[in-house]
Amino acid sequence: MQKPLILVSNDDGITSRGILNLVNVMKELGEVLVVAPNSPQSGMGHAITVGDTLRLNESFLFKDVKAYECSGTPADCVKMARHFVLKGNRQPDIVVSGVNHGSNTSISVLYSGTMSAAIEGAIEGTPAIGFSLCDYSHQADFSHTLEFIKKITQQVLKKGLPKGTALNVNFPPKRNEAIKGVRVCRQANAKWVEDFDQRFDPNGRSYFWMTGNFVNFDKGEDNDEWAIANNYVSVVPCQFDLTAHQAIPILNEAWDILD
Amino acid sequence: MQKPLILVSNDDGITSRGILNLVNVMKELGEVLVVAPNSPQSGMGHAITVGDTLRLNESFLFKDVKAYECSGTPADCVKMARHFVLKGNRQPDIVVSGVNHGSNTSISVLYSGTMSAAIEGAIEGTPAIGFSLCDYSHQADFSHTLEFIKKITQQVLKKGLPKGTALNVNFPPKRNEAIKGVRVCRQANAKWVEDFDQRFDPNGRSYFWMTGNFVNFDKGEDNDEWAIANNYVSVVPCQFDLTAHQAIPILNEAWDILD
Repeated sequence: MQKPLILVSNDDGITSRGILNLVNVMKELGEVLVVAPNSPQSGMGHAITVGDTLRLNESFLFKDVKAYECSGTPADCVKMARHFVLKGNRQPDIVVSGVNHGSNTSISVLYSGTMSAAIEGAIEGTPAIGFSLCDYSHQADFSHTLEFIKKITQQVLKKGLPKGTALNVNFPPKRNEAIKGVRVCRQANAKWVEDFDQRFDPNGRSYFWMTGNFVNFDKGEDNDEWAIANNYVSVVPCQFDLTAHQAIPILNEAWDILD
Repeated sequence: MQKPLILVSNDDGITSRGILNLVNVMKELGEVLVVAPNSPQSGMGHAITVGDTLRLNESFLFKDVKAYECSGTPADCVKMARHFVLKGNRQPDIVVSGVNHGSNTSISVLYSGTMSAAIEGAIEGTPAIGFSLCDYSHQADFSHTLEFIKKITQQVLKKGLPKGTALNVNFPPKRNEAIKGVRVCRQANAKWVEDFDQRFDPNGRSYFWMTGNFVNFDKGEDNDEWAIANNYVSVVPCQFDLTAHQAIPILNEAWDILD
């Protein structure tokens, strides 16, 4: 049987430890192609490069793996992989993104470049997974995540995913206790409350750093925040149809300007 | 009765005609505060500025309207409005974004900075609307949209929106025939098929422009693409819970690595 073609991207950039760990696991599962940003792209959400040019250069960072570094966003990387690097050739059997240095649970999925790469896979009908470790450190320890990344990817390669979905997988930080297992979850109801740290440059003009506190309103045990807090791997199936279908009849009933 | 406080942002930047048109309509409905990007931010999706600093300066572009220009993304603008400009004071009664120069129907909602500003409003529990005109020209004619922008905003101010939703409103381009009316729709099943136009700089190194064709797979008449093609205003209620809830039982059934 032909080995699966696995496209790997991320949002921390091609030099991060997270993507190196992910590539090493994927090499055990198939043929790997890396197209990843040439600089950190955290917080880029689903941004794409429409008003500017893109660069793409071959990278020699990974042993025995074809790789490219791209000047664009994670979504750009997946688009370039498909429509330039692989144009006219065999397309990926799966898209994996990460491993992100930091949590992408709950509302953070919206801001996540890691997940935008995975969602791009799903838009194209390719099974896709974004992996994130709930540890922001550049020196983060990924050792406890590797067996789960392998198992989860194997499940998706074997069984596919429901149409129009990509998985948002988060791992608890390395703790003394071993991970308890894997839970399929919904996105927790939580948000960031920002603050802006105002400072002054050497010319006396103000500038700001965005800071924020994460606030969890969710009391349930079926969400990703609960899973991570309780030392489980969280798996949230995500969709790119943003329609709030339940709101359509409500608006149709309430509004008096419709035709 | 106190006039509503209306926060206005956009993604084409504070100097665009679209935001000027939106501000002029909103001045008829309440007290207006503008916080908008100081440069075009099209295609920024839900990006936020996490690894860099932000600038915010007062703008005098709008007559009798308090306004600020921000170096960040549309999502940054809404966050700065709430947590810096209005910190400790009355918060907006509604967030409106646009009017975007170009369509944000269907899958484009994911890439839309216009809609990310509106979604930020929804995350905070504030009714929010992103307005887009399906005409990419800088000289686009917005005259046919103004009465609809006013009516739709009035409906939302009066009746609110279902919790966790923001409206994605798109207008057909100006045609000879008048707009037929307003339709509540779902996001059409469509996607962009990209191509990368490879060129060479004066040093002989390659660079790329992303180009793309929009492909609509949707045969329904209840979606935003149909509405625009048939000269209706499309109103899609959007949510920021990306969970594909219907996929949870499917994964729980199919996977053999769960606990």
